[in-house]
Amino acid sequence: MNDLDLRNYSVRTDLALEAKEMAETPGSVIPGITSETINDDGIKITRLTVENEQGSHAIGKLPGNYVTLEVPGLRSQDSGLQDRVATQFAKEFELFLKRIGMNKSAKVLIVGLGNWNVTPDALGPLVVENVMITRHFFELMPDDVAPGYRPVSAVAPGVLGTTGIESSEIVQGIVQQSEPDLIIAVDALASKALERVNTTIQIADTGIHPGSGIGNKRKGVTEEIMGVPVIAIGVPTVVYASTIVNNCLEMLSSHFKTQTDNAGPIMGMLHTLDDNERLQLVREVLNPLGHDLLVTPKEVDQFIEDIANIIASGLNAALHDAVDTNNVAAYTH
Amino acid sequence: MNDLDLRNYSVRTDLALEAKEMAETPGSVIPGITSETINDDGIKITRLTVENEQGSHAIGKLPGNYVTLEVPGLRSQDSGLQDRVATQFAKEFELFLKRIGMNKSAKVLIVGLGNWNVTPDALGPLVVENVMITRHFFELMPDDVAPGYRPVSAVAPGVLGTTGIESSEIVQGIVQQSEPDLIIAVDALASKALERVNTTIQIADTGIHPGSGIGNKRKGVTEEIMGVPVIAIGVPTVVYASTIVNNCLEMLSSHFKTQTDNAGPIMGMLHTLDDNERLQLVREVLNPLGHDLLVTPKEVDQFIEDIANIIASGLNAALHDAVDTNNVAAYTH
Amino acid sequence: MNDLDLRNYSVRTDLALEAKEMAETPGSVIPGITSETINDDGIKITRLTVENEQGSHAIGKLPGNYVTLEVPGLRSQDSGLQDRVATQFAKEFELFLKRIGMNKSAKVLIVGLGNWNVTPDALGPLVVENVMITRHFFELMPDDVAPGYRPVSAVAPGVLGTTGIESSEIVQGIVQQSEPDLIIAVDALASKALERVNTTIQIADTGIHPGSGIGNKRKGVTEEIMGVPVIAIGVPTVVYASTIVNNCLEMLSSHFKTQTDNAGPIMGMLHTLDDNERLQLVREVLNPLGHDLLVTPKEVDQFIEDIANIIASGLNAALHDAVDTNNVAAYTH
Amino acid sequence: MNDLDLRNYSVRTDLALEAKEMAETPGSVIPGITSETINDDGIKITRLTVENEQGSHAIGKLPGNYVTLEVPGLRSQDSGLQDRVATQFAKEFELFLKRIGMNKSAKVLIVGLGNWNVTPDALGPLVVENVMITRHFFELMPDDVAPGYRPVSAVAPGVLGTTGIESSEIVQGIVQQSEPDLIIAVDALASKALERVNTTIQIADTGIHPGSGIGNKRKGVTEEIMGVPVIAIGVPTVVYASTIVNNCLEMLSSHFKTQTDNAGPIMGMLHTLDDNERLQLVREVLNPLGHDLLVTPKEVDQFIEDIANIIASGLNAALHDAVDTNNVAAYTH
Repeated sequence: MNDLDLRNYSVRTDLALEAKEMAETPGSVIPGITSETINDDGIKITRLTVENEQGSHAIGKLPGNYVTLEVPGLRSQDSGLQDRVATQFAKEFELFLKRIGMNKSAKVLIVGLGNWNVTPDALGPLVVENVMITRHFFELMPDDVAPGYRPVSAVAPGVLGTTGIESSEIVQGIVQQSEPDLIIAVDALASKALERVNTTIQIADTGIHPGSGIGNKRKGVTEEIMGVPVIAIGVPTVVYASTIVNNCLEMLSSHFKTQTDNAGPIMGMLHTLDDNERLQLVREVLNPLGHDLLVTPKEVDQFIEDIANIIASGLNAALHDAVDTNNVAAYTH
Repeated sequence: MNDLDLRNYSVRTDLALEAKEMAETPGSVIPGITSETINDDGIKITRLTVENEQGSHAIGKLPGNYVTLEVPGLRSQDSGLQDRVATQFAKEFELFLKRIGMNKSAKVLIVGLGNWNVTPDALGPLVVENVMITRHFFELMPDDVAPGYRPVSAVAPGVLGTTGIESSEIVQGIVQQSEPDLIIAVDALASKALERVNTTIQIADTGIHPGSGIGNKRKGVTEEIMGVPVIAIGVPTVVYASTIVNNCLEMLSSHFKTQTDNAGPIMGMLHTLDDNERLQLVREVLNPLGHDLLVTPKEVDQFIEDIANIIASGLNAALHDAVDTNNVAAYTH
Repeated sequence: MNDLDLRNYSVRTDLALEAKEMAETPGSVIPGITSETINDDGIKITRLTVENEQGSHAIGKLPGNYVTLEVPGLRSQDSGLQDRVATQFAKEFELFLKRIGMNKSAKVLIVGLGNWNVTPDALGPLVVENVMITRHFFELMPDDVAPGYRPVSAVAPGVLGTTGIESSEIVQGIVQQSEPDLIIAVDALASKALERVNTTIQIADTGIHPGSGIGNKRKGVTEEIMGVPVIAIGVPTVVYASTIVNNCLEMLSSHFKTQTDNAGPIMGMLHTLDDNERLQLVREVLNPLGHDLLVTPKEVDQFIEDIANIIASGLNAALHDAVDTNNVAAYTH
Repeated sequence: MNDLDLRNYSVRTDLALEAKEMAETPGSVIPGITSETINDDGIKITRLTVENEQGSHAIGKLPGNYVTLEVPGLRSQDSGLQDRVATQFAKEFELFLKRIGMNKSAKVLIVGLGNWNVTPDALGPLVVENVMITRHFFELMPDDVAPGYRPVSAVAPGVLGTTGIESSEIVQGIVQQSEPDLIIAVDALASKALERVNTTIQIADTGIHPGSGIGNKRKGVTEEIMGVPVIAIGVPTVVYASTIVNNCLEMLSSHFKTQTDNAGPIMGMLHTLDDNERLQLVREVLNPLGHDLLVTPKEVDQFIEDIANIIASGLNAALHDAVDTNNVAAYTH
């Protein structure tokens, strides 16, 4: 596993779903990858498993389970939809807990990665602020805790630029002191498609790896480093300008292909370039002028707050039996 | 003037500089438009005048004076550069004050348009928070005000969606009550080039017109409506995804033209489309998928704060003789 | 009425309830003042009417209706209690609307007085951020508004120190432009009792008068000035240190009186001083040392947010038939 | 030392200076305590040393060095004074560094204790946000760091109620991972005098002990626990209502004593009670009514921000030779 260079893939995405989309050709099946998709009234759930090294090399993601919830309607700030997403998220998350054999009293540490001063990177810290914290009750008055709860703690370790210490090292120290059975790491991601930004949630049992997420992590938050299992929750909140352009050119290309036998006259060589060549070209044009920035939708403040609430509500319901999955939102604010 | 439909121009930009760039062909001169450019160690100042109706129709901007400061280096958060930009801004702003005949005791109302809950639209309210407010001293203890100051007031009227009232109407009411001699209106704009976002400041003596800025204004902040002159200060803080793509295609096109006699084989029909046709095509592809959002760079929180401080410092120096243009930053925080 | 100097009363309180408590002696009835009290499971509602000039002079408050909700339990952040308070507030507020003859389509402007940068003074602006804004729907698409709503707009005019303009003047200008039928003005108040701070809400149909509230208003928000009725909503959020001391001495005095025939030996002259003399003494001691500050409880951030939500929820339910008084909290966040 | 119960002292203060004031009688000298006072144009600096167990028992503070800067003028928000305080603070802090033998390359971890959501408790986290972070440069590119800097890291570990983990344990874990030579712990304190709130800074080489500060710490941040020296920086930001009353009664008592031979007739028994008896009485009266809250001045938002900037500026100058003590403020914002 260690020799797998995940950074070789030039079209940057932290979503296994997008990595699979890029790797597959229409009609084909990628060996070592299984996936199923459920549509539930505006919520599209994809359960993808990278079964082995072959699948891992094919899409550039580590073997493991990845679940993605895509909800384009989240941009409309419909609180009914938000509640439904939180409930679905909770159900999918419970499946992860079962699969890795976590019982109902297993102690959980929630880690909110990212920088709270940079709105699109503040997802993790915002989730940490909104989840129910119970560990101190178990420590200080264990006999008084009502049934249906488990010990949950949560920290936002900051980022290297604001603390001077790798967030991975800070988490390691806290894990050694507080001895959780499971880490849930929440992070903001980069997507390759603007329409997935702030509308998509990924759950994965593979941890957080160096270089993933928005910040430049040099060390991961993984079971290998931490000594306990790590479930990662990620939401794409930014996209490279070059990726927007490249993605649009690909859509143009597909668009014309459906209309004419030969898209060449319309798009010239742009049609024949493969994804990475085209992206390379776009970057060469954009970079010198400072165009190739990471961007985020204008309404980022509200979007991030909404999704952080959904994740916090979902986690509260998934982690504590006493919190009802039918009304998860009542436990956060 | 009234029959000039500024919204006909499908490539949306609030910057006169960009409007001129789009209208002109290399080597040509647009009748009715004069402009000069000064480069001062990383700060590019363009003084553009739309002299008459002919120029106005050519570039789709009202007759008047437009000064643009372009400072790509602002993204590096260099406080020395920030101070120099504030000083240059103050000098250019003083020229506007002189040109419209405002004397040193003329009363000024600074209006910060935009929504403080939406970071890329919060520029105006942030400037209002940082400028020196002096009007109440002149009202309450006129004899105690030190020389070198003028009466300055400032309001952030909010946006239609959060107040239920047009910001233009709120400003009108405040103007009637407080009777300023001049309005300075600060607003966040849309640009057509990502590299200008958060690095460019425009000063114009034409006021704020319906549909300009980020919000959907239906009424303007103009001398016609307010009864006193209006100087507008704008900073592009967002750009449409479709504009990023279109802009990149244009750069690709120019790029290949310099390398080969015929860019056709490389870019196909995309090379021969004119700006608006190509933009139309891009939008048709992006829109159905929810891709055509207004986006802003990831670091928007810091960028907006920096530029708001620059503008506030510059206004303090330009409006009050007692504030030194050589050390304008000391008066804001 | 104009010659009534409300500022003569040296024990500063903006609450009619406290003014009455100070004016009355045990067992006595103050002519011109009627009041009734209802206790509803932790919520104490007092409906007080200053019926005439005699009552007004007796307690130093203008003739009119004052309703106070006292809820000591609000400090425990119990969301069930918060919902009940919002519902009770809505019911009391509806009685005010009926009493002044406002029909269900009367247009309302909510004014959030105070300074959003000073947490204990940010109540008004926070309420404005959380109420439902509907006026623009009635203006822009009157035929599409669902039944059960009325036109509501809301502004936070800032304070003299940050705008340079009296908030009263700003409101006047906005009223002239937007022509509401009723103004609801929300403001933070000073109390004379620490236990009422952030636990008490007052509704009054007498408007906001110069010198009331936390800021130093020189002009009021009253029907006389605005031309339309004004209902004031106030929450005490601060108390003078000297008032805390004076209040405690009074409690000590009462305490010993119930235990002994003569509190003199225990409290000396402090027992025989009347309220104002004692306060004067306390101030003389505290002032030179900078002790006599306005203070607020440590948890002010959370308390203010909670009460702002209660008021916003209550207003939404009281103003719109379509919003259910049984579940008012769902309409704010 | 371990058997010293610091919590026996019923008048709660975290300031050694106040503890000494309470313990001493006019004209007397407390054995085991030495102190000197310097006045520098509005800044009063007291250097107090608890030399031995005798002194420690006398005032209820651990043996060690305590420096207090009292600056009543800080409430006037004079930026010139703020700069001077930062410079004086830096000089005093450098003396601490020398005394405990820290050389110029010793690695420092700054710990900002407290809760960033509770303004009067947010001092520590705010200092952490404003200090220069350099450790990662030393780790990632040690050869490129300019001379005159040392490795500085900084974390805000949160509070038990928001993380579920003792802040002391979090710091321990981070210390084990990042291996600093010195910890600087910044915390908000309780004072016994309202006029010292937000105007006083204490530096002590005794660390942070259980129960000190605003939160309820059960474990300290001390050399014993952390394995490296700990310098504590504290600012009183809150005071108990009962302490305000008690303090005022003491002042009344002193006041009348200077005017008359016998204050008894004026203050009765209140004059003869000792400090703790009187406080007990005050608490008995205030507590049942919910009056005995921790309070903070109304302007807490601005005061905390100002003092956090002063401390951050002072630390930057004291820790890095390359930062000039004559212009420390330029390095923070």
